[in-house]
Amino acid sequence: MSNPLLRDRDVDFLLYEVLRAQDLCELPAYADHSRETFELVLASARKLAREVLYPAFKPMDEAPPRLDAGQVRVHPAMREIWPRLVDLGLAAAARPAGVGGQQLPLTVATMAQGYLMAANAAAYGYLGLSAGAAHLLEAFAEPGLRETYMPRLYAGEWTGTMALTEPQAGSSLSDVKTRAAPTGNGDYRIAGNKVFISGGDHDLTPNIVHLALARIEGAPAGIKGVSLFCIPKKRFENGQLVDNDCTAAGVFHKMGWKGLPSIALNFGERGDCRGFLVGQANQGIAYMFQMMNEARIMVGMNGVATASVAFHESLEYARTRPQGRPIAARDPAAPQIPIIGHADVRRMLLRQKAIVEGGLGLLAATARYADLAAHAAEPARRQRAALLLDLLTPVAKTFPAERGFESNSLAVQVHGGYGYTSEYLPEAWLRDQKLNSLHEGTTGIQGMDLLGRKVVATSGAALTALGGEISAALDRATRAGLPQTWQQQLAQAGQQVGELTLVLAQRGLGGDREAMLLHSADFLELFSTVVIAWQWLLQAAAAQEGLRAEKPDPSSEAFYQGKLCAAQYWFSTELPRIETLAALCRSGEDSYGRAQPDWF
Amino acid sequence: MSNPLLRDRDVDFLLYEVLRAQDLCELPAYADHSRETFELVLASARKLAREVLYPAFKPMDEAPPRLDAGQVRVHPAMREIWPRLVDLGLAAAARPAGVGGQQLPLTVATMAQGYLMAANAAAYGYLGLSAGAAHLLEAFAEPGLRETYMPRLYAGEWTGTMALTEPQAGSSLSDVKTRAAPTGNGDYRIAGNKVFISGGDHDLTPNIVHLALARIEGAPAGIKGVSLFCIPKKRFENGQLVDNDCTAAGVFHKMGWKGLPSIALNFGERGDCRGFLVGQANQGIAYMFQMMNEARIMVGMNGVATASVAFHESLEYARTRPQGRPIAARDPAAPQIPIIGHADVRRMLLRQKAIVEGGLGLLAATARYADLAAHAAEPARRQRAALLLDLLTPVAKTFPAERGFESNSLAVQVHGGYGYTSEYLPEAWLRDQKLNSLHEGTTGIQGMDLLGRKVVATSGAALTALGGEISAALDRATRAGLPQTWQQQLAQAGQQVGELTLVLAQRGLGGDREAMLLHSADFLELFSTVVIAWQWLLQAAAAQEGLRAEKPDPSSEAFYQGKLCAAQYWFSTELPRIETLAALCRSGEDSYGRAQPDWF
Repeated sequence: MSNPLLRDRDVDFLLYEVLRAQDLCELPAYADHSRETFELVLASARKLAREVLYPAFKPMDEAPPRLDAGQVRVHPAMREIWPRLVDLGLAAAARPAGVGGQQLPLTVATMAQGYLMAANAAAYGYLGLSAGAAHLLEAFAEPGLRETYMPRLYAGEWTGTMALTEPQAGSSLSDVKTRAAPTGNGDYRIAGNKVFISGGDHDLTPNIVHLALARIEGAPAGIKGVSLFCIPKKRFENGQLVDNDCTAAGVFHKMGWKGLPSIALNFGERGDCRGFLVGQANQGIAYMFQMMNEARIMVGMNGVATASVAFHESLEYARTRPQGRPIAARDPAAPQIPIIGHADVRRMLLRQKAIVEGGLGLLAATARYADLAAHAAEPARRQRAALLLDLLTPVAKTFPAERGFESNSLAVQVHGGYGYTSEYLPEAWLRDQKLNSLHEGTTGIQGMDLLGRKVVATSGAALTALGGEISAALDRATRAGLPQTWQQQLAQAGQQVGELTLVLAQRGLGGDREAMLLHSADFLELFSTVVIAWQWLLQAAAAQEGLRAEKPDPSSEAFYQGKLCAAQYWFSTELPRIETLAALCRSGEDSYGRAQPDWF
Repeated sequence: MSNPLLRDRDVDFLLYEVLRAQDLCELPAYADHSRETFELVLASARKLAREVLYPAFKPMDEAPPRLDAGQVRVHPAMREIWPRLVDLGLAAAARPAGVGGQQLPLTVATMAQGYLMAANAAAYGYLGLSAGAAHLLEAFAEPGLRETYMPRLYAGEWTGTMALTEPQAGSSLSDVKTRAAPTGNGDYRIAGNKVFISGGDHDLTPNIVHLALARIEGAPAGIKGVSLFCIPKKRFENGQLVDNDCTAAGVFHKMGWKGLPSIALNFGERGDCRGFLVGQANQGIAYMFQMMNEARIMVGMNGVATASVAFHESLEYARTRPQGRPIAARDPAAPQIPIIGHADVRRMLLRQKAIVEGGLGLLAATARYADLAAHAAEPARRQRAALLLDLLTPVAKTFPAERGFESNSLAVQVHGGYGYTSEYLPEAWLRDQKLNSLHEGTTGIQGMDLLGRKVVATSGAALTALGGEISAALDRATRAGLPQTWQQQLAQAGQQVGELTLVLAQRGLGGDREAMLLHSADFLELFSTVVIAWQWLLQAAAAQEGLRAEKPDPSSEAFYQGKLCAAQYWFSTELPRIETLAALCRSGEDSYGRAQPDWF
């Protein structure tokens, strides 16, 4: 059986049984859609992912793009993939009809993208980055600039990048040094160096559009003086595309995502690089942050997808690889059993399932809040959804990256010695996954964002909204007839989060933000564990509804039982861990807080 | 500052302040040794590791051996390394003078090997495997066979392998199929296929000696019919070395350990492969198991070493890489601070330190029990040490592999985006580390070994002995004046382990070994966490003694404070987690126990 990447039954279950995404079509923005159109999109994505992107994954992992006489050359497989990927229409699918989009709910688009990411994260990366760059122009560029670049990006004629990072300014964007000097003709002369620019150079399309942060001469120091520029590899001059002095200085050799080059880029080596200001001067960080939720949800989905493809590979391996005999029947003459017959192998599989499917549920839910934030009928509902989206984004970004890495490691482990070889794929996915805890804000930054901003924003309104969502889930679980213990556990956990947040917020209000944020990593882990428990309760409730509704066929019966089993695992194995984490946060345990640099 | 691999001060602290390894010299077997001879051995190992092995690590990672016209070619760097590595004398250092050894305590030899492993695990692998093969011959081969092969292996003239695994028999050694037919001339005709044979073919030495498992014609089925053979790549015939029909069928492409080839080996493709029986027929597994402790301690040390070199790399990076500003001082005009100034970076460093140095302490302690088991004066002391060695071996093997992998991942994370590139080394060490949870018995097998055999062996005598060691540590901690809370925590944790073991053992005695072993992974994690807490209490006590003894210099003061700080971290952050794990074991939580294959 070939790898399903994501399981179709699971995606359908989350969309239609758990989230009832079909109800989104009642909103005016999605009026042209229906479950049927959703399914058409998903079917095309599944087919392309499985038939075109997935077969190219290993070849692209084995032969990364090279820098050849100042030009980066992509893997030949990308030339076949690119036009078909563009034709799928996902770059602008969730955008308004006015910019060529289909006004598809992000809930559905995100799932469709998940298949492509699971099949070949690097190949999808070219499209994802282009869509992100186009969306920035759509949102903030003045019409002339926007019309020159945005449609070509959405159409895949050119590709785009996000050019933020500089050698001296990784996570610290306020230290961006790239300079922009007004030419007097409405554009700017750009000079500076960027690093880790994914897709920063290649020969896949004739032009590349960098959305880059730079500092206009005389701008204030720090974050308040950073502007957003559109810097194309080739600019128009008298209707012709001419070289714009963007040089690929080098290709980083990465441990994974090998099909997508990561470039060190020099702007203006010859003094002839022009950039076009996007929106207002000195608003670059604000613009970037408005796109950040979207980018972080993409990273989260990538984490889920990379863990999912490996989970399914190890599941199939465990079902078919004979090795050893049951503990109770050690007759050496008996045939060996498939390793899924060993409890410890099932432990590794169930843990992967709980992480992958719990994470997928969270990503779908988060995308749905994004849809509601943009298009719900009442302003209050939009505002509430926006709060939930903001609150859940650091979790949706980080949980799949961190627990997904563990999940990917288990997929290697299930394969035994074979898992360590590149004759099998899990080691490649393990290498791919490691990036997700690093890019678009490291895990440390997500923890600070969650505890320092999100849970305390607008007097805890987001947390109150989450409490409401959890209550609704508890009600649904009760109606479905789930075990009361799970509901009590989740209710208590939710209360725990609220009380703990108050304690920590008071430390911050007392003037000691260092103390407030000391255990932000523990808080993020605790919060994520509770959020995933909420997702598993929802999935368990929907599964129980499915079991009760009518006599399900044996395959549905097994599917639903699996959901209940994974929920049981999460509630018994993971959720109890929050007590230790809460105690650490409360006590302000100070070992690394007070450790001096020369103590290590 | 160049990477220290292991920190000398830490190794000396463990040997002389924590374990008082110099006292071993009072035993007759070690009478020729003293702290001075220990230091000579360590100094040579440190120098060779830092100056010769370490510089070759990256080149060897980048250019793995290839199979070229039936012959595997090693990296050229190995030709320089090999004679100097052999000259160091570590292959036989811990062996008796009678076989050319130095009767050096394993406690010291293991630490010396740790430097070599941290510098270049693959390069050291050729020597470690040869020493293991030689030791098997020393212990079990009849004199003629032994004298032909053992001295050449200890001398590094030839290298050796352990050839256990077959395509259909990975962890399940009872399913070994390689056949051995008596020729009538005292040797056997061998036919079969082996996979994942590290160092199974190469051109570094003119001969390779495989210590292989095979089944003599007519032997009983299963584990009771497996014999150990010595199968050289070239055999002596009339005083000449002639080809012995061992063919390298392929090289596995591995995610790490790239300098040491992993080979698919065919014995007897042309019907002309001869093997020499080692010891008695059908005793192969027993012989292998007698060597297993040693091999697993080597893997454990490798795990510690691989985490250690990455920890030190990330520590140096954190001390020198400027990025961001303190939370309380966000003036963008202020210079950036080294990232070690951020609490969350110190969290990642302290966690690495706790894992690396806690693991190193355990490895040193375990090696010391091996020394005492072999050479303590009184039989009862030898027996007690043997029990402790057996009990701790699965922990010493697995803790560094599993937590070391997490530690290696944190070293990547501390490096941010740079950590994802192979311009820096942490990603290579992360890839190397993954092997240690797989070879020499997977983590799952170690859990079954610990819970199914070790803690219940001889009516729990080993556990009682460990209780005695913990009591001694508590006494030492009290005398040193450490916080009472740590001692109470460890005493309770020790009691927890004892009570839990009884509960689980009774399930096994009641006839349900499946139920007893269902949570062997959780039990192993719980047990390991307690064992490392014991090690940290010992280290904290020795540190406190150091602080009290006389006015320490500032560097020693910082070193001792760091030890106390890491102990605090372990007691506050890790040890409390055992409550959740114990509850899972006790309750017999059955999610993955009852999960059906079609539920996933």
